[in-house]
Amino acid sequence: MKEYKSLVFDYNNMMKDFVGEKEGFSEKELKNNFDIAVNAHKTFEENRGLNMLGWTELPYNQKGIVKHIKTVAKRIRKADAFVVLGIGGSALGTNALFKSLCHLHHNELKKSKRKAPKLYVEDNIDPVRMKELLDVLDLDKTIFNVISKSGSTSETMSQFLIIYKMLKDLYGENAKDHIIATTDEKNGNLIKIAKEEDLETFFIPDGVGGRFSVISPVGLLPAAVLGIDINELLKGCIHMDKMCRKPNLKNPALIFGLLQYLSMQKGKNISVIMPYSDNLKLIADWYCQLWAESLGKKLDLKNNIVHTGQTPVGALGVTDQHSQIQLYTEGPFDKVITLIGVKNFKETVEIPHMFSEYPSVNFLSGNTLNDLITNERIATEYALTKNQRLNNSIVLEEINAHTIGQLLMFFMIQTAYVGAMLNIDTFNQPGVEEGKNATYALFGRKGYESKLEELKSAKQKSDKYII
Amino acid sequence: MKEYKSLVFDYNNMMKDFVGEKEGFSEKELKNNFDIAVNAHKTFEENRGLNMLGWTELPYNQKGIVKHIKTVAKRIRKADAFVVLGIGGSALGTNALFKSLCHLHHNELKKSKRKAPKLYVEDNIDPVRMKELLDVLDLDKTIFNVISKSGSTSETMSQFLIIYKMLKDLYGENAKDHIIATTDEKNGNLIKIAKEEDLETFFIPDGVGGRFSVISPVGLLPAAVLGIDINELLKGCIHMDKMCRKPNLKNPALIFGLLQYLSMQKGKNISVIMPYSDNLKLIADWYCQLWAESLGKKLDLKNNIVHTGQTPVGALGVTDQHSQIQLYTEGPFDKVITLIGVKNFKETVEIPHMFSEYPSVNFLSGNTLNDLITNERIATEYALTKNQRLNNSIVLEEINAHTIGQLLMFFMIQTAYVGAMLNIDTFNQPGVEEGKNATYALFGRKGYESKLEELKSAKQKSDKYII
Repeated sequence: MKEYKSLVFDYNNMMKDFVGEKEGFSEKELKNNFDIAVNAHKTFEENRGLNMLGWTELPYNQKGIVKHIKTVAKRIRKADAFVVLGIGGSALGTNALFKSLCHLHHNELKKSKRKAPKLYVEDNIDPVRMKELLDVLDLDKTIFNVISKSGSTSETMSQFLIIYKMLKDLYGENAKDHIIATTDEKNGNLIKIAKEEDLETFFIPDGVGGRFSVISPVGLLPAAVLGIDINELLKGCIHMDKMCRKPNLKNPALIFGLLQYLSMQKGKNISVIMPYSDNLKLIADWYCQLWAESLGKKLDLKNNIVHTGQTPVGALGVTDQHSQIQLYTEGPFDKVITLIGVKNFKETVEIPHMFSEYPSVNFLSGNTLNDLITNERIATEYALTKNQRLNNSIVLEEINAHTIGQLLMFFMIQTAYVGAMLNIDTFNQPGVEEGKNATYALFGRKGYESKLEELKSAKQKSDKYII
Repeated sequence: MKEYKSLVFDYNNMMKDFVGEKEGFSEKELKNNFDIAVNAHKTFEENRGLNMLGWTELPYNQKGIVKHIKTVAKRIRKADAFVVLGIGGSALGTNALFKSLCHLHHNELKKSKRKAPKLYVEDNIDPVRMKELLDVLDLDKTIFNVISKSGSTSETMSQFLIIYKMLKDLYGENAKDHIIATTDEKNGNLIKIAKEEDLETFFIPDGVGGRFSVISPVGLLPAAVLGIDINELLKGCIHMDKMCRKPNLKNPALIFGLLQYLSMQKGKNISVIMPYSDNLKLIADWYCQLWAESLGKKLDLKNNIVHTGQTPVGALGVTDQHSQIQLYTEGPFDKVITLIGVKNFKETVEIPHMFSEYPSVNFLSGNTLNDLITNERIATEYALTKNQRLNNSIVLEEINAHTIGQLLMFFMIQTAYVGAMLNIDTFNQPGVEEGKNATYALFGRKGYESKLEELKSAKQKSDKYII
């Protein structure tokens, strides 16, 4: 049987012994607050699979769906391009999987080499982007996947109308062969449209919010189209889930969650995720939605005004050592920095001997880029710690579907824990309604007349504050 | 004569009248603090062109260089690919120009359509990235541009060794035709190597730090290769520079700078830049380096310990409305949010009439994506303001080399002003030394023996904090 290595979570540099008395945590502090973790864990376990914790069971309950996804994916893989029309949770997970587990220049490879369609994840409504996407598509050989649980996401539905009209004009009745809908099974517009138009459909199960949907058909279908082993991905999720079953010091998501929660209480309002791997760059973007939208809340569950939340920042090692590290080591003590390392990269590149008369070049020769990226990560960890900056590290044995599954599940479970610690609703997003409603009003949508009145009666901007 | 429109800076929503008493600024407050702005402006003007403010003169003093850049670029444009080997300031500006002013799928277009080489900006040392870059290059038709002022940037010099060895093995003496060096004219390894090897060279002038180098040959050569009108870009810089000559309420960078400085004093430790345009996405990344590395400082000019700095966050409108806006509207009051809008996009995309029985889809039909992205920006501004979140807006008439020049200069001048207000050295980055030295030590580089001793004698990590 294949042996799987677990990701390693190292929080030495969150402790007083390493980052010093003022910033660090003591063992006693963790012990004294451990009931917070135990309670969060209890809440999580008691609600597993229920309400908006439906996603916890996705690694276990999708056998039939995975089979169906694979069948459909096999057909799609003959296409030249696969285009996801979706935004937020309908896009970020797929982007993360694509970047992690495919060739970094996938879309530029010859078909024979990439063995899968090109992938485009269209998560914006910039008109330039839409036109320029069409410049690189051969519609005859393109399949679109429109993803919206409610079927009322303005951005996605606009894209859908534009694309579907184009497909209808080109292919008439056969337009439907070019489009797949991923949506709620019962409610909303998109399922109705899909039925009317006889589209292939996949469903987003109950209890799975957008930012937890990467391991539902939302992320799994595009992943399967790309040739990613989605069984291994889900196995990785299970692997992590099993590591998190007990409320003890061996539960990495719980310890990470508790440390993050306690850091927030100490005023660390910024969470930096800094993977040292280009493949993991978009895992950081995915995390940024998960963390921001889940924990950024005005009210707690008792309706107290709390204005809680920690601002996530994605950075890329070593690249952002030349952009952000100056601030991280010398600026305010307002952050917790999580470095993500990779033990074994799938490629090794040697740095040759040349120009050996220059010491600042010569010391590199004979080593590998692998050594360099790893030593720079360790050196950055050291520099942050020496400057008393709270930091921790996650290290993956290698990047593959299993370890990525672990990592995604790790962050999702941790987020749920921290939401429970904060006593907030981790799974809603009431703060986005105001902007949505104002958009509807600006378009003169029926039912939004009073919002339009409100907008019109808002204080007019003053020219003196415009330069 | 061509008429150029200036970017518009709107700070209504920084004022009490709009975001409320608690968060907003009063006119009196601005007036009372205006001497801070006047002094910063004075410092800036007095030092224009001197020391590390050499970059202020780049829009004016590069006539001959621009001509030479264009000549060389014309030759390079026949190549199939142009690869920048550089990191931090040697990469971010080029990325920003590339994404802003070229086709969003430039590298995927057929040569006949793109009319310029493919561009790759290699700003990391991930071995997978290096191997996978080589998968898509035809070295016979590729030209590399190695960029490092000091010639001792480990990442860039490693890349250079790897690539140059490969070119030497393939082309022998002619390897030099495939590589251009951009570096300091007098000092460092790279200029020496370039001379020994007879490489084509461009120089980074004195007084131009990496994060201010986009309008030097660092950014201008790749831009010219891409076919970007670099004269227009520099004209845009001059246009903005002229707008900033006086310390008054008509100087947009100064007012923005003062507001940002005062916000920092009020505890807003996060600066969000959120362009509503895919083309401007990497302008945000460029800004993030500029802002973080310039203002994130431990010491002020009098050597007081200040640990100053504001953490920059790049977000993309409308995309990140589905990721970050929940946090921005409901989370802590710890941010200033700068939206960047575009008045006229270069493309217009209509949303067709279809499925009109569904109100949440129907209201979109007959409008354009242009309307949608603009209304969503206005609606987000409204929602932020209603939730008492400090925000301001920059609006570009359209995206072209001139407006991008304005925008870059606007941010660079503003950064210099705020650095002066904070009384710090805006142009150094001492905080990155620790990590660099630790890296050298880990490689056993000569002269770093005591650092290695220090690393070895650091407290050993405890297994109990590793899961």
